Amino acid sequence: MKVGFCTINYSELPLNEVVELAAKKGYEAVEIPAYTDNGQMDVDEMLRGGNAKKLKKQVEDAGLIISGISNHADSPLVLGPHGKDLASVCDGTPAEQIKFGTESMLKCARLANELEIPAVVAFSGIGNFGRFNDWPYPDGWKEEEEAFVQNWLPIFDKFAEYGVKVAFEPHPNNIIYDLHTTKRCLALCDRHPAFAINFDPANIFYTGINLGSYIDEIGDRIVLVHAKDCELVEHNMMRGGYWMLQREWGALDRSFRFRIPGWGSINWKSVISELFNTGYRGVFSYEHEDVIMSRADGLDMAIAFLKPLMIQQPYEGRNDKLFQK
Amino acid sequence: MKVGFCTINYSELPLNEVVELAAKKGYEAVEIPAYTDNGQMDVDEMLRGGNAKKLKKQVEDAGLIISGISNHADSPLVLGPHGKDLASVCDGTPAEQIKFGTESMLKCARLANELEIPAVVAFSGIGNFGRFNDWPYPDGWKEEEEAFVQNWLPIFDKFAEYGVKVAFEPHPNNIIYDLHTTKRCLALCDRHPAFAINFDPANIFYTGINLGSYIDEIGDRIVLVHAKDCELVEHNMMRGGYWMLQREWGALDRSFRFRIPGWGSINWKSVISELFNTGYRGVFSYEHEDVIMSRADGLDMAIAFLKPLMIQQPYEGRNDKLFQK
Amino acid sequence: MKVGFCTINYSELPLNEVVELAAKKGYEAVEIPAYTDNGQMDVDEMLRGGNAKKLKKQVEDAGLIISGISNHADSPLVLGPHGKDLASVCDGTPAEQIKFGTESMLKCARLANELEIPAVVAFSGIGNFGRFNDWPYPDGWKEEEEAFVQNWLPIFDKFAEYGVKVAFEPHPNNIIYDLHTTKRCLALCDRHPAFAINFDPANIFYTGINLGSYIDEIGDRIVLVHAKDCELVEHNMMRGGYWMLQREWGALDRSFRFRIPGWGSINWKSVISELFNTGYRGVFSYEHEDVIMSRADGLDMAIAFLKPLMIQQPYEGRNDKLFQK
Amino acid sequence: MKVGFCTINYSELPLNEVVELAAKKGYEAVEIPAYTDNGQMDVDEMLRGGNAKKLKKQVEDAGLIISGISNHADSPLVLGPHGKDLASVCDGTPAEQIKFGTESMLKCARLANELEIPAVVAFSGIGNFGRFNDWPYPDGWKEEEEAFVQNWLPIFDKFAEYGVKVAFEPHPNNIIYDLHTTKRCLALCDRHPAFAINFDPANIFYTGINLGSYIDEIGDRIVLVHAKDCELVEHNMMRGGYWMLQREWGALDRSFRFRIPGWGSINWKSVISELFNTGYRGVFSYEHEDVIMSRADGLDMAIAFLKPLMIQQPYEGRNDKLFQK
Amino acid sequence: MKVGFCTINYSELPLNEVVELAAKKGYEAVEIPAYTDNGQMDVDEMLRGGNAKKLKKQVEDAGLIISGISNHADSPLVLGPHGKDLASVCDGTPAEQIKFGTESMLKCARLANELEIPAVVAFSGIGNFGRFNDWPYPDGWKEEEEAFVQNWLPIFDKFAEYGVKVAFEPHPNNIIYDLHTTKRCLALCDRHPAFAINFDPANIFYTGINLGSYIDEIGDRIVLVHAKDCELVEHNMMRGGYWMLQREWGALDRSFRFRIPGWGSINWKSVISELFNTGYRGVFSYEHEDVIMSRADGLDMAIAFLKPLMIQQPYEGRNDKLFQK
Amino acid sequence: MKVGFCTINYSELPLNEVVELAAKKGYEAVEIPAYTDNGQMDVDEMLRGGNAKKLKKQVEDAGLIISGISNHADSPLVLGPHGKDLASVCDGTPAEQIKFGTESMLKCARLANELEIPAVVAFSGIGNFGRFNDWPYPDGWKEEEEAFVQNWLPIFDKFAEYGVKVAFEPHPNNIIYDLHTTKRCLALCDRHPAFAINFDPANIFYTGINLGSYIDEIGDRIVLVHAKDCELVEHNMMRGGYWMLQREWGALDRSFRFRIPGWGSINWKSVISELFNTGYRGVFSYEHEDVIMSRADGLDMAIAFLKPLMIQQPYEGRNDKLFQK
Repeated sequence: MKVGFCTINYSELPLNEVVELAAKKGYEAVEIPAYTDNGQMDVDEMLRGGNAKKLKKQVEDAGLIISGISNHADSPLVLGPHGKDLASVCDGTPAEQIKFGTESMLKCARLANELEIPAVVAFSGIGNFGRFNDWPYPDGWKEEEEAFVQNWLPIFDKFAEYGVKVAFEPHPNNIIYDLHTTKRCLALCDRHPAFAINFDPANIFYTGINLGSYIDEIGDRIVLVHAKDCELVEHNMMRGGYWMLQREWGALDRSFRFRIPGWGSINWKSVISELFNTGYRGVFSYEHEDVIMSRADGLDMAIAFLKPLMIQQPYEGRNDKLFQK
Repeated sequence: MKVGFCTINYSELPLNEVVELAAKKGYEAVEIPAYTDNGQMDVDEMLRGGNAKKLKKQVEDAGLIISGISNHADSPLVLGPHGKDLASVCDGTPAEQIKFGTESMLKCARLANELEIPAVVAFSGIGNFGRFNDWPYPDGWKEEEEAFVQNWLPIFDKFAEYGVKVAFEPHPNNIIYDLHTTKRCLALCDRHPAFAINFDPANIFYTGINLGSYIDEIGDRIVLVHAKDCELVEHNMMRGGYWMLQREWGALDRSFRFRIPGWGSINWKSVISELFNTGYRGVFSYEHEDVIMSRADGLDMAIAFLKPLMIQQPYEGRNDKLFQK
Repeated sequence: MKVGFCTINYSELPLNEVVELAAKKGYEAVEIPAYTDNGQMDVDEMLRGGNAKKLKKQVEDAGLIISGISNHADSPLVLGPHGKDLASVCDGTPAEQIKFGTESMLKCARLANELEIPAVVAFSGIGNFGRFNDWPYPDGWKEEEEAFVQNWLPIFDKFAEYGVKVAFEPHPNNIIYDLHTTKRCLALCDRHPAFAINFDPANIFYTGINLGSYIDEIGDRIVLVHAKDCELVEHNMMRGGYWMLQREWGALDRSFRFRIPGWGSINWKSVISELFNTGYRGVFSYEHEDVIMSRADGLDMAIAFLKPLMIQQPYEGRNDKLFQK
Repeated sequence: MKVGFCTINYSELPLNEVVELAAKKGYEAVEIPAYTDNGQMDVDEMLRGGNAKKLKKQVEDAGLIISGISNHADSPLVLGPHGKDLASVCDGTPAEQIKFGTESMLKCARLANELEIPAVVAFSGIGNFGRFNDWPYPDGWKEEEEAFVQNWLPIFDKFAEYGVKVAFEPHPNNIIYDLHTTKRCLALCDRHPAFAINFDPANIFYTGINLGSYIDEIGDRIVLVHAKDCELVEHNMMRGGYWMLQREWGALDRSFRFRIPGWGSINWKSVISELFNTGYRGVFSYEHEDVIMSRADGLDMAIAFLKPLMIQQPYEGRNDKLFQK
Repeated sequence: MKVGFCTINYSELPLNEVVELAAKKGYEAVEIPAYTDNGQMDVDEMLRGGNAKKLKKQVEDAGLIISGISNHADSPLVLGPHGKDLASVCDGTPAEQIKFGTESMLKCARLANELEIPAVVAFSGIGNFGRFNDWPYPDGWKEEEEAFVQNWLPIFDKFAEYGVKVAFEPHPNNIIYDLHTTKRCLALCDRHPAFAINFDPANIFYTGINLGSYIDEIGDRIVLVHAKDCELVEHNMMRGGYWMLQREWGALDRSFRFRIPGWGSINWKSVISELFNTGYRGVFSYEHEDVIMSRADGLDMAIAFLKPLMIQQPYEGRNDKLFQK
Repeated sequence: MKVGFCTINYSELPLNEVVELAAKKGYEAVEIPAYTDNGQMDVDEMLRGGNAKKLKKQVEDAGLIISGISNHADSPLVLGPHGKDLASVCDGTPAEQIKFGTESMLKCARLANELEIPAVVAFSGIGNFGRFNDWPYPDGWKEEEEAFVQNWLPIFDKFAEYGVKVAFEPHPNNIIYDLHTTKRCLALCDRHPAFAINFDPANIFYTGINLGSYIDEIGDRIVLVHAKDCELVEHNMMRGGYWMLQREWGALDRSFRFRIPGWGSINWKSVISELFNTGYRGVFSYEHEDVIMSRADGLDMAIAFLKPLMIQQPYEGRNDKLFQK
């Protein structure tokens, strides 16, 4: 297990500077943004000539690996919400928006293949998340599920051709947002081999599910992990509850908020143990969305917290007389 | 405090039969549906001649009062979700749908005035509930709030003219769904005197907020109460969490489900005490959506559970020497 | 086990009317106030001629028994707080106040003897309760303990002569207020046989101790029980905590408040079971200090709640083959 | 759902008297002991002539049904513990003990068939329960499982011929004692159709498993239910824990103890709801092992507690416009 | 945020030695005692000539700052408890005691001004803390509040002249001891600008309030923080509860006890986050009252625990395309 | 307090290599196996000539001490379970097995005396652990207790002669397995001075008792401590409970499992504090049975976790004016 760094944490810095910073602080991997106009990596350019290989070498020369590339901005266009909700990414008709999202994902697949990384992080999107309630439109969620199959299945097939996976990050306002929806979508696409999960525990913790349950049931699909914490703010829970998603995330009355690993309510030793026990041997990419402390604070604290928790080898059993009997 | 009965529980029976049944079982009030084509009461007809008065008398002759009329089906059209999500109520353009909902509410105001009841139960509606998450569209919720003011404020004014109130029932997939959104919408309309709440504890319990907090802060706006319970199904919470709203509500793996009063996780003595302490002296209308037991089971059990809990008078204090000193 | 009624609940009514009311509602015992000027019973008069016997007969003719007499107002003068804090009971020098309290208790002992009841309910009093903190005066509590022995021990001896007991009601602002102080004072007076407890669970519940622990350790000294409940108001605990004793007890932001039995946080089945298991076979006297509902509400609800919980006989064991083996 | 009565509660009374007592108190069914020398019913005699039918008629004439017969004493001999541990039931070699237990069960099968009842309650037995710990003998539990198959499978086959089932009551010191062991034994006998469960929640509650989990997973095998409660004695748990099984069960320091329904820690509404939701429509047989109160106390309290909780019909759904959309 | 050291931890050593020790161990600030005869700093002497400046320079030369001066012993005399309870500090009439406390505070104000530190730590004092219970003297607490205004307000005015604040440390046996009393006293003095708080979480934790609630409501008044922990001793809580303040604090049966930071029940990450989020950028002064381990153990452990938790900068937000949209 | 290492963790390596490895990693003590054929130390050989002294010197030359020797395999033969359950240790009649276990323990006593260590770690054994349930054999546990006295008392006497103690490790499938059984066996042997405890918190944590209660009541008998953790796997508890002892311990559905210190559910600061407060000044021997991570992972993590928690000196009290008053 390794500790990684999401380079987009310092979106104002060029990629190579962030890679160097991460390396200096002891991080062992980087996750690089791949959506359009992210400011750090241009996928079109990377797909030209040997640019991808050059990038890979550059990162490895710094002593790190590339754990994954992420396409959070473009990917949800595959399902929505269309119209103005995602117009900042692509302003067009729903059909144009879907096309934009789909093509962006396919380019990422090619790049992932060239970079020899396992997966592209994506949001699954949704037309209208309110349909998770069966009222007033009882067929609403079913239609969202049908759209999921129709729009994502062809992408899965292409990914399979490239030998890489779509690593969905469960998140509210997406069709995949908790344990049951992950299992449901996996079933809907007949457990397609290109369907994978980027496990960001903070994004699902405040739905109230148990992370150990999630990992044990979905573990074999988890190919990437985000190291982000979620603090249930005890004294605000009674008034704010589990559904307090609107801004401002830094407000004093928040009932939950994102934190750097170790400063929230997530039991990281349990998360790491369950992941290791289900076979995960990959990277924990630290993503900074802590609404209280600076990235500089987090840069030091995250690695100090996580590094000593990385398990390296499974138990060999004991073979002395007492145990073998 | 009185125990009431939602006549729509037996939607297949004519209104007068349900009133008689409720009276026979000991209920003291009825809540009557008022949305279009509800099968029990036609608002247009009631507004003709002395029909409203006749209904009132008929109920009172049976020994009950009318606690309120409810317009759950038409009211959300005022805000949405428009399009096919509410097409079963009114199939038209969003503008037509808004008009339909608005006019239905205004007719209910007239009827409430004639029936001399304080309020019309309504859902607040919303365009796209997914915008409760500030991602991907940070301005989304703000726009929903603007629509709330634009579409509901004129209705409030009309209600004020009739001397009655809109009693919003907080509920997911509506802009008013928990404590913070209730307070926010109340502020958005400058604490309009026609803004009231129909408090259905089951609908907000699974957002994780504390019902006592809700009552203490909103109590002076609560004019009606639904007696419906919500069971947090302990052994399913870890896998299902607080966001498991899709069907089937009767499935074994539900993490929460609606129940008759007393069979769920709500602390009714606390709810009743806080309501009484904030001045509520009204009705608890039993609404049956228990996914396990029949309406016949509930008909007997609900009144048996609630009747002994109705507080009649506040504490007079004690005046003996020990206390007056 | 029987359900009793504190006649002082209706301090504005004459004693015989309250006895009749209690009898009519199904109560089986009464606790009668015995402090000076309580308005219902004059101890001096009762000690004259056969008045005590007459009272006893009158109560028994109504089908009830007298469970005890209570001297809450005068008794604390034995220890304090002296000066103006108890001047409403007896305005004088500390020495005069002590004398007043002591003599009042001794008259009660005589009366209890004549009424053939086991005990006189009393508060233990204290000079300055703040000394329960060893800062700033480390010897403060020790001095209070010395005063306890000096002032109460002679009273115990007199009580023993009369064959009755002092039933201290643990309560804040008294030297006996929780489990440890009960045990400590019992030890200080060498486990004097006249030292007994009137167990009012509500008065100690908010110190956070477990009532089962109290009963199991002190049970053989418990001779009377008050049926009063204490509600920990969940949504106010975080801000109010366990030390919120100042007025107003009916305020919305209270973290705990007194309630009628069954409407608070006390597990009555556990309390009753532990008491029965330690040998208690006496009365649960309902005392009304519920800050939300009226005495009329409580009068009906308390007996309805408690009567079905009274255990009559201990388990006989089972003797079939399966168990005797 | 019905409330039943285990006639062995009054083992010192003849069967017909207990049946009458149960009927008079409102119970609707009886469970009758069937092990050798139980003092109330002699299986051999019942199998003669029309005795079984006569008994059935006698119970039904009293207005009750026979819910089941129980063979707690003889049945464990099928597996053990053999030797002196069960010598009081049958003193012989292990082989003789097994034969005794097996034959007793088979006679019960015949009788159940004649009485037209679905099942015979049984303990599963075990050689040495200590082997549930894999130390010091790692193969120990496996050998117990092999014995289970070898000794019980032939009995299952015979039961299937009679059209009745073995209703194992999970219990410590038996191979079936919690959820995992129930599932394991069910698998070991290839989900034999004669394998059923008599669900006594009190016997497994103190293993710490959740009763809802048990019911949801095993529900289709539950054919009988015991109404017995288990009180986790809060203030003793820290010192006694979940493994405090030795006598005396009535001691003050018990960390858990058996109680009548409603006086323990079991959430009966949840248990009843889950059972009903998995299809159970049978009897809750009240078995008295409450170590604090008498059988006479329990006789009244158990029916008063359980009768109002019996669900009669499942939810029909709602079909008004609001829901059908 | 910085980690500081209360020099009085080593009261037997001269101030300069303690400053050097603290510096050597990595502490960044010191809090110095200022009450009469504290043995480390004589206020009168400091107020002479340039002594204060010299001290300031001496501390700064060691690489530390002075975070505050504390007057725990003299300050409570302003309110009490008078008489023998505080006679060890000043033996005299109550009037003399008040004068002594007041003058000591005023001298501290001058010194704080010269040292350029923001505040003087003080206890608020109280006449008879038992009056926090409204029985037996319902006006008792009101009188204490009146005394608070009368005696402290003039001091606040003087402090304001010196540009420094009184930093009350909430504590039992003082009028300011929890959240409600802090808010109440703040209101009583019309939110005087010289009213500030020295937040010692251990002193209020065992009242059961939530520290996050305290910080969020009082945060803008918190100018100093004590790093002291409070351990709720789980297995003793049921018997000792929240009111067990008497000696011996090191006894095995304590229900709570003071500990060094990190060894108690306080969630320091939450405390630090809330403080930072309300704007606190000051010092956490480690005060040793751990009743189990030595000061030498604490000296090393406290800094090792706290230093890595000091937040330096607030979150800058993220500005990449994904977030700015 | 010191951190030690159980050399048997690396049973495949010779003792001296393990001692060196432990020393290199910072451990300060070793616990060495002493049962027959353990592969690291032959007791018979050690008892010859000066071999014991040589071993002692060798360990001390490496900078460590020997904290104890352990005889987990042979010791349970003293009580059982006899027959095949312990045949792998000694295959013979029960009498032969008892003799084997007894003699092995006595040799260990001699060796402990020569090594100048305080105790020999042992399991207490039991004939049939299932008898901890009083059904079906009510006298079963009493007979096990009689056997305990008969078989262990002579061993205690011999140990006393050698000036060393038997340090029983409470564990399931032994007569000493929780707090009550420890106290009971201590009483049964009249609190024999050679009766001591090797406290392995992980072995008793899953019985649900509180470790603080155990330590406070048994503390004066604890002479050795194992540093092993137990993880209650939250999301599996509802289905597995507290009695899930069968294999496989590494399975995903375990409700509890052994872990290295710091990765389980044990509150180590509380355990260490209570032990220190009851006078323990000894070693915490890290024993690796973590079913998830390798011994190499544990070797580094255990010392990193435990070393900073070792308390060195008790609190000296504070003597400044504020406290001495």
